[in-house]
Order: sequence, then C-alpha cells, then structure tokens
Amino acid sequence: MPLADIKEGLRDAKAVDTVVEMLGQRFGSRCQTGRALREQHAHTTSYIPPQPPDAVVYPETAEEVQAIVRLCNEHRVAIVPFGVGTSLEGHVNAPSGGICLDMGRMNRVIEVNQADLDCTVEPGITRTQLNSYLRDTGLFFPLDPGADATIGGMAATRASGTNAVRYGTMRENVIALEAVMADGTLIRTAHRARKTSAGYDLTRLLVGSEGTLGIITSVTLRLQGIPETIAGGLCAFPTLEAACNAVVMTIQMGVPVARIEILDAMQMKACNAYSGLNYAQVPTLFVEFHGNDETVAIHSRTFGDIAAEFGGSDFQWTRDPEERARLWDARHNAYFASLQLRPGANGLSTDVCVPISRLAECIAGTQADIAELGLLAPIVGHAGDGNFHVLALMDMQDRAEIDRVEEFVRRLNSRALSMDGTCTGEHGIGQGKQRFLVEELGDALQPMRQIKRALDPNGILNPGKIFALET
Amino acid sequence: MPLADIKEGLRDAKAVDTVVEMLGQRFGSRCQTGRALREQHAHTTSYIPPQPPDAVVYPETAEEVQAIVRLCNEHRVAIVPFGVGTSLEGHVNAPSGGICLDMGRMNRVIEVNQADLDCTVEPGITRTQLNSYLRDTGLFFPLDPGADATIGGMAATRASGTNAVRYGTMRENVIALEAVMADGTLIRTAHRARKTSAGYDLTRLLVGSEGTLGIITSVTLRLQGIPETIAGGLCAFPTLEAACNAVVMTIQMGVPVARIEILDAMQMKACNAYSGLNYAQVPTLFVEFHGNDETVAIHSRTFGDIAAEFGGSDFQWTRDPEERARLWDARHNAYFASLQLRPGANGLSTDVCVPISRLAECIAGTQADIAELGLLAPIVGHAGDGNFHVLALMDMQDRAEIDRVEEFVRRLNSRALSMDGTCTGEHGIGQGKQRFLVEELGDALQPMRQIKRALDPNGILNPGKIFALET
Repeated sequence: MPLADIKEGLRDAKAVDTVVEMLGQRFGSRCQTGRALREQHAHTTSYIPPQPPDAVVYPETAEEVQAIVRLCNEHRVAIVPFGVGTSLEGHVNAPSGGICLDMGRMNRVIEVNQADLDCTVEPGITRTQLNSYLRDTGLFFPLDPGADATIGGMAATRASGTNAVRYGTMRENVIALEAVMADGTLIRTAHRARKTSAGYDLTRLLVGSEGTLGIITSVTLRLQGIPETIAGGLCAFPTLEAACNAVVMTIQMGVPVARIEILDAMQMKACNAYSGLNYAQVPTLFVEFHGNDETVAIHSRTFGDIAAEFGGSDFQWTRDPEERARLWDARHNAYFASLQLRPGANGLSTDVCVPISRLAECIAGTQADIAELGLLAPIVGHAGDGNFHVLALMDMQDRAEIDRVEEFVRRLNSRALSMDGTCTGEHGIGQGKQRFLVEELGDALQPMRQIKRALDPNGILNPGKIFALET
Repeated sequence: MPLADIKEGLRDAKAVDTVVEMLGQRFGSRCQTGRALREQHAHTTSYIPPQPPDAVVYPETAEEVQAIVRLCNEHRVAIVPFGVGTSLEGHVNAPSGGICLDMGRMNRVIEVNQADLDCTVEPGITRTQLNSYLRDTGLFFPLDPGADATIGGMAATRASGTNAVRYGTMRENVIALEAVMADGTLIRTAHRARKTSAGYDLTRLLVGSEGTLGIITSVTLRLQGIPETIAGGLCAFPTLEAACNAVVMTIQMGVPVARIEILDAMQMKACNAYSGLNYAQVPTLFVEFHGNDETVAIHSRTFGDIAAEFGGSDFQWTRDPEERARLWDARHNAYFASLQLRPGANGLSTDVCVPISRLAECIAGTQADIAELGLLAPIVGHAGDGNFHVLALMDMQDRAEIDRVEEFVRRLNSRALSMDGTCTGEHGIGQGKQRFLVEELGDALQPMRQIKRALDPNGILNPGKIFALET
C-alpha cells in the first residue's frame, strides 16, 4: 500500500521540540499543540489513517510564512500546508510529523480588476467566500469542485469540477502565484498579462504540486462575467453508451456546454430516495448552458436534438432559476444521497479520467467490477472531460470489505491507464495514488524527483506526498 | 546587451570533433557540416548576429534523438533543436557551437482521435501541414502565430497568435509531450485525458522551455471542430482608447470572439499602400466569430453595438468566405505591408503583453516613444489578450539607429512591466530578452535555474537561452 513508501527520516523529536518552542514564542496562541486540534488538521475523507502534525500554526502574512519555512528548513522539520481539509487522498496528513500551516487567516481579497477579469487573493479564502465578495462586480470565479475548498488548496491539487468543460481547471484559471520556496525566498511566478512566454512556467509547476515545492501565499485568478442567462436541464438515456455518445457529439459540435454531468442508474436510485424524486433509474445527463436568452435557447435545442438522436428522453430544460435548481437538485445532492444508501458506512471517493471516446466502456467495466466485488458504489461523472467519480460505501470495521474496495480501486486505475487516461482527473496523488502515478508516468517520475530535490533539498515541504523520494 | 551573458564554456573543439565524427559515421548524409547549411540553421529574424552550430543532424526517430543526446551529454557538446527557424529572439543560435538537431524529418502524424478531438504528431510538422492532413476529419488545429512554424517549435516557445483569445495558447492546447531529457531518457509527460492531477505538470514545464530542458519528440494536441460558419469584419475607431475600450467590453460581456486584432494608424497606412486599399488611417479592429449562421450573427451584432457605443464606424461583417478574406486581407498582409514602408530596411519584431485595461495606455506610450526616437514602427496587436507587436524598421548599417531601436525596446519592455505585464506574450526569451526576464521575475529566476541545473547538469541543452546560468 502507498503508505509503506512514506519517508520517516525527518522525524527528529528534538528538532521538532525546538521549532515548536520557537514558533510558540513568536506566534503565541497562533501556535497550537492540543491533540484535538492537531487531529482535526489530519482529517481526511479517505480511508487512509490520519497522521496528525506536531503543531498547528496560523500565519497571517507571507512574511510570517517565510519565517516559519526558514526555521523549519534550518531544523529539518516538515511543513504541511492546510486549507479547509477537503482533499481526498491524504494530502494534509503529516507522516513525518512537523508543522501544519493552517492558511485560514490568510483569506483576504487583495485586489479585483474588473476590466481585466482577474483578482488576486490570499490562499485561505474559499471559493464561496470569493464569490460572495465578487457578487456586486458582475464577475464570478466559475470553478466548482463540489466542496467549499480554499483557492490555495484548489491550486495545490489542480482542482476543477463540474464546469471545467467550459472554463477549464485550476491549470487554466491561475494567472500567477506568489509562493514561499523551501529556503524561505518569496517568489512571484508571473504578473497579470493573460499570456506570457517569459521563462519556465512556474505557475503551472506549482499548480498541482500539492505543497511539495512551495507554500502558496497569493493566487491571481481569471474571473468570468456572470452569465446573463443560465439554462439547465436533464435527459435520461437507455444506455450508458448512448449517454456518452451524446456527450461526444455535443463536444465535437462545439456546443459550449457549461456543465455536462453523467449519473449512473445506481446514483439516480440514490437521488430518488434521498430527495423524494421519481426519475427513471437509468443513465442520465444533467446539462447547463451559460449565455443570453437567445444563445442558451439555441444551444439547448441543439443539445436536445443530439440527445434525441441517441435515444435520450425528451430533454427538459429551463431558464427559470428556481425551476433549474429543482431540475439540478438530484445532481447537487448526489454525494449526500449516495451516503444515505448505506447509513453508517464510510464513503471512499475516487476519481479517474479517460479520453471521452472511452468513457462509456470505462464506466461499464467499472460497474461490472462493482457487481463482481459485491460493492455498493454509485457513479457520477464530469462527462465532458471524461472524468468520473465512484463513491464506494464500506464498513471500516470489515477488513475483507476494505480489501475488496482496494482491489476495486486498483482495477479502476489500471483500466483508466489502459485507456490512455489518468489515475486522477482532479483529486491529486497525495498518499493514496502514488503507486498508480508510477504505473501511469514511469520514467517521467525521475525529472519530478530531480525537481523536488533541487527546489527542496531537505525534503521539508509536505513530505510523503506525490512520490516517496527513495523509491 | 544580452549576448554578453552567454556561456562559452561548452566550446571544446576536440569534444565537438569527436562527436561530429561519430555522428557522421552513424548518420551519413544526415549529418552535415557545410558552412552554408550551418549558417542557414542560425538564421534568425532578429537583429542578433547569427551563431552557427558545428554540425546539423537530421534525426528520424526518438531513438535517434536519444542516441545523439547521450553522445553530446557524454562529451559536453551543446545541442540546439531547430524547427523551421521562424523564432524571433535568437532561439536557434548556437553561441556554444555544437549540434543543431533539425527536426524536419520527424514530421509525421502519429494518430488522430476524432471522437476525442486530439492528435499526436512528431515535432517537425508545421501547422499548415497538420491542418492539410486534418482537412477531411472536420477538425482543425486553431493556433495561428502568423508564420508556418513547426508544432514542436510552437510548443517550445509557448506560441499563440491571433486566435488565442478564443482557443488559448500552446499552454492550453498541448495535452502531452514526449521528450528526450539531457541524460537520454525518453519520457511521456501525460496521456490523453483532457485533465489530470497526476504529479507535477511536466507538460507545461516543457512548453515554453525553449529546448533548454528536453528535446520534444512528440506532441499530443487538442483539436477543434471546424466551425460551421465563420464571420469576419472590421471597424474603425476615432482613438486607440475607444478601440481598446470596445475590446474590454467585448471580453467582459463574454462575447466569444475568435480573433480581435488591433492595427494602429501607421499600420493601416502601410496596409492601404501595400494592398491598394482605402481604409481610414485610424486605429482599427479586425474581428472574427466562429459558430453557426445563427450564433455568429448574434455575436457580430453584439459586437457592432459595442463598437458603436465607443464611437466605432459602421461595423462591416460578413459570413461569405471570399468577402471575409477581402476584409481581412489588410490584417493578413500586415507584416509584409510594414516592410514595404521602407524597402531594404530590416524589421525587428518585438512583443509585449499587458492586462487589457492597460492596452490603450501602453500602445499610446509606445507611439510617443516611436515619435520621439524618430523610428518607423507600425503596431499590430492581439487586442483580446493585451498582446501587441511593434515592427521597428531599421538600417542595419546605421549604428545610431540600431541604438535608438535598442533604447525603444528597453522602454517598451519597462513600460509593459510597470503595467503588470510581461516582456513577451508569445515570442519567448531566447537570447534577446534575458535582461527583461530578470527585470520581470527577479527571484523567480532562482528556481528556474535550479530546475535547469537539476535536469541538465552539464548544460548541453540549448545553452545561452532564457538565462545565462552564471548570472
């Protein structure tokens, strides 16, 4: 299992004591060592056991982050950056102990440039906090990974979500970053121009680096104008393949769908039960269009025609916000609906991503595995990107069941890789997917490790994540 | 001047002789040392003097590239990758001598996946060759930097061009790369999924690395469906500011413009003279919309309304391909038209990029410098991205004029940086912009150099580009 790979070398009790004492002197009540708080900061929603840090520190400025990083680097003590703890692959665990940097107090909006459709924020702001702040500007930050994650956390895991098909992922939406490197240097990776060819793309290198190369202290983001009109709807299909073919055709025809989500029959069953709905328990697409009254109507009609061509039911869509919310309710509550399929069970949420031409086959194979292994595991996917999630419900006391879930995850990732896909479309590697990363990228891990060693020679930044340096 | 920074340490005549002899034995006529051919491979369109390599080798496979790189690494001989030589900042110069890798024979299309809208090609194929190949598939590769550059070269310089405002740059359009690293290892940076959170983004690190981190041997690209309908048109404005305000409003309203180009009065004068046209010699926007008959009409009308609001002339637009070509003729021939303003002069093409809210001010300041320094230098810009080019026409025998152009370029870059912009939106750093890169990113050059040293410890890959390691 991945955890076997984790480096323990940093754990020098005396060094940690020294650092914690010095941080206590400087930060007072903003440096905490209580057990409950430390455990809360190692909270993960995966089945990986929590590994708490030795202390939690709450910096308020980039200068404070620099001071903490310098101190930890000098004493070879690990640093684990923390947003709100919504990551799914053990990213905030502290296998080598050390200092958790809770970025929650660095949650200011630094500037909004309305004419340029950009803003610069501190990393601890959450996406809904940002959108509340922006409301009066007519702009919004579109990315929606479901959870109310922090912008810093989303950048660090290269997050995306339901509307990446239209607006891209954090890769496309981060214009620039400020980050504290392992030696305490504060760098700015770029300025505010929409595009640049000036040197190595450090922005993109830090986006998705999961806190292992630098601590993000500010993020400059692209924003979008709030659409004049949003249309939403849903459409049931006789088979998975039919639904996926409709998705492929929609993308191929360049219909600018803002969201296009697939829910499998089991997920629809869960949604019906949870929300008292009566939808057909068959593969269903939920779609959304952004534009004005005229363009969303054109695109909705085009999508309806495509859906009909592939045997989809009558496409119900609306421009009315309340009606749209009602239609989309099943999708929005999918996660909680799934958990209610088996009250008391834990849910392991995993993700893979494949070329969209392989999506139907990949989901069908996954469903066959679920059946064969006797699991309860609904599927919901960002179909336009070929990205889907399986929420495996399991009893954490039942070792045999956990083993079956692990076997299931292994098969899921191998299948995605065999289809030219990736072991993670948006959750990241963390601790949970390290062996799949090796399977996926092989020799490309060597330059990754060389970069890690060059930028963080003492290995203090979020050790034990993405790859164990020794392997 | 930037050239002072260039490292000469690699130039060991005996090592070069050994390597050239061994390459001659293996590659026969695919290893050339004739002076004319070597000089041709150091051809640049900048005013930086050509620096030819010691030999030019034409690999045909990734394995051959690996063998060449291993040999050069062992003997500490420089390697300069070469596409078709359309780069503008001295990227293909060989200041340390060594081997030019002409990738022109690696120009095959490896696969096209129509349903997934992607293809994988060898780096030496040019963008028009690729689009010819794709014609029957209903797909196209949208990026258009003007020159018929190779896909490998475009990836290496993070190129873009007129329709980046709609389709993004090479940063957004390269899905994955294969590259030979300095030690000869062949890596694949990703597979074909539309998005991934699997490890460091080596794809984006190599895109824009100008051949200094690895030699690209295959590129997987996003493709687009050929639009059902293209509409194009142009609109004259009373002032630069009015034109730029129309651009800002267009972007802010989310009008999905496919191209939106600005030509200044001098450029319009050049175009009129070159093509026998009679346009008003005032700032003019050329726009293009991609969609179907219905959507391009909606978007053209919206744009026309915006233009009128800012005092634009009647917006002339058309869906007719011939008529559109006629309207766009001035823009397409802008480069050649400019050269004709002063026959026999050399043109120095430079680029900067600023947030679009600063574009008018930045261009106005640039025009004032042109006047003050007594230069002839038309301006054309990808206004939707805040990116513009100045073509300074100069007599290469006139040292005083060259000095004035250098002063002009210095002011242009400083102005862009003072406006939160970048010293290059799409041309790259090469040899010509190294001092501006330092001015732009400061401490961020340190991790860039650390990465360079980690991945290419002997400094054999395109030495003297982006940054001189010693500074």
